Amino acid sequence: MTANNPLTEMLAEKKIYLASASPRRAQILSLLGLKFAILPSEIDEESVFSDNPVQHVLYLSRAKAEKVALQIPEGLVIGADTIVVLDGSILGKPADGKDACAMLQRLSNRRHQVFTGFTIIDKPGGRVLSDFEVTSVQFRKLAKWEIEAYVATGHSMDKAGAYGIQDESAVFSDRIEGCFYNVVGFPVTKFYLSLYELQK
Amino acid sequence: MTANNPLTEMLAEKKIYLASASPRRAQILSLLGLKFAILPSEIDEESVFSDNPVQHVLYLSRAKAEKVALQIPEGLVIGADTIVVLDGSILGKPADGKDACAMLQRLSNRRHQVFTGFTIIDKPGGRVLSDFEVTSVQFRKLAKWEIEAYVATGHSMDKAGAYGIQDESAVFSDRIEGCFYNVVGFPVTKFYLSLYELQK
Repeated sequence: MTANNPLTEMLAEKKIYLASASPRRAQILSLLGLKFAILPSEIDEESVFSDNPVQHVLYLSRAKAEKVALQIPEGLVIGADTIVVLDGSILGKPADGKDACAMLQRLSNRRHQVFTGFTIIDKPGGRVLSDFEVTSVQFRKLAKWEIEAYVATGHSMDKAGAYGIQDESAVFSDRIEGCFYNVVGFPVTKFYLSLYELQK
Repeated sequence: MTANNPLTEMLAEKKIYLASASPRRAQILSLLGLKFAILPSEIDEESVFSDNPVQHVLYLSRAKAEKVALQIPEGLVIGADTIVVLDGSILGKPADGKDACAMLQRLSNRRHQVFTGFTIIDKPGGRVLSDFEVTSVQFRKLAKWEIEAYVATGHSMDKAGAYGIQDESAVFSDRIEGCFYNVVGFPVTKFYLSLYELQK
């Protein structure tokens, strides 16, 4: 947005760090017109002991943000974590191509949920804000060749649930309910409102 | 997608023309991995006599495709038209900045529908297929400065309803129900399935 945007004016003096290696998150965050640096922060997903999707994404988004917050003297640090949930089971990133095919076969002709948690840490002030968004995604019935052709692109491998709604697998889903950007990996509207609250 | 995709194999010998100047439609169509040429085709919206959203978008998508089909000896021509509908009123592209602000003010804190119609004409075979998609979009309550800052970017001007869900106005909506790409201007999943049907 432009200069008459109170949010960008408020944050003009603030350094912002995105604690994520995902180019998709960076792209979505760019929509807000904020300048930020990327400081990837990987946390071992095995360190999460909760099967509860909300606790899972809140914990990991906070762990990622905290790891980066330790490295900087001041600024806003943003962490995020996205998972796919089918029938109460959490699907993370696939281990290999075979695993990706199996995940997509499970998602075929079904509805699943995408959860993204995010955490904002304000240093040195110390304020921390975490929240999450959930979006429902309906997949149509997928043919075997469609799954194989998509997995062959290699785009499954770094994505929860083995698909990216913004790439060739866009045609796998025919309906979503909720925030679209949350499915891509960053719930931009909820984040924007949180950021605004935090700066008040 | 890759070489083992029956759709791209079927269409490999076919010239494809997109009858639209919208870079967003071209970008979405690219997700299918098809090669196509762009032949913009503008039809006067005043030539539509129907207030019915479905008839409106089907008529205009077909008129655009037919105009381009007349210029080529053979190939597949794709036409599309997108409108925003609020309380039964059709919102097209804004006339100027003031009109854009007024449209966004009307959409604020309300739910509206986005309709996109598309038509595929297969020459010289002569087969014609038209269909449409509708998506519901919920806007949160917008502040006056948010509307003004967005309209100042100039991104309102070539878009039905004066916003583009893929740009800075992404934060205006907090929930959609249906196909996301339909809101951007091209219902890629429905189109993909139609194309597949047409080639059978």
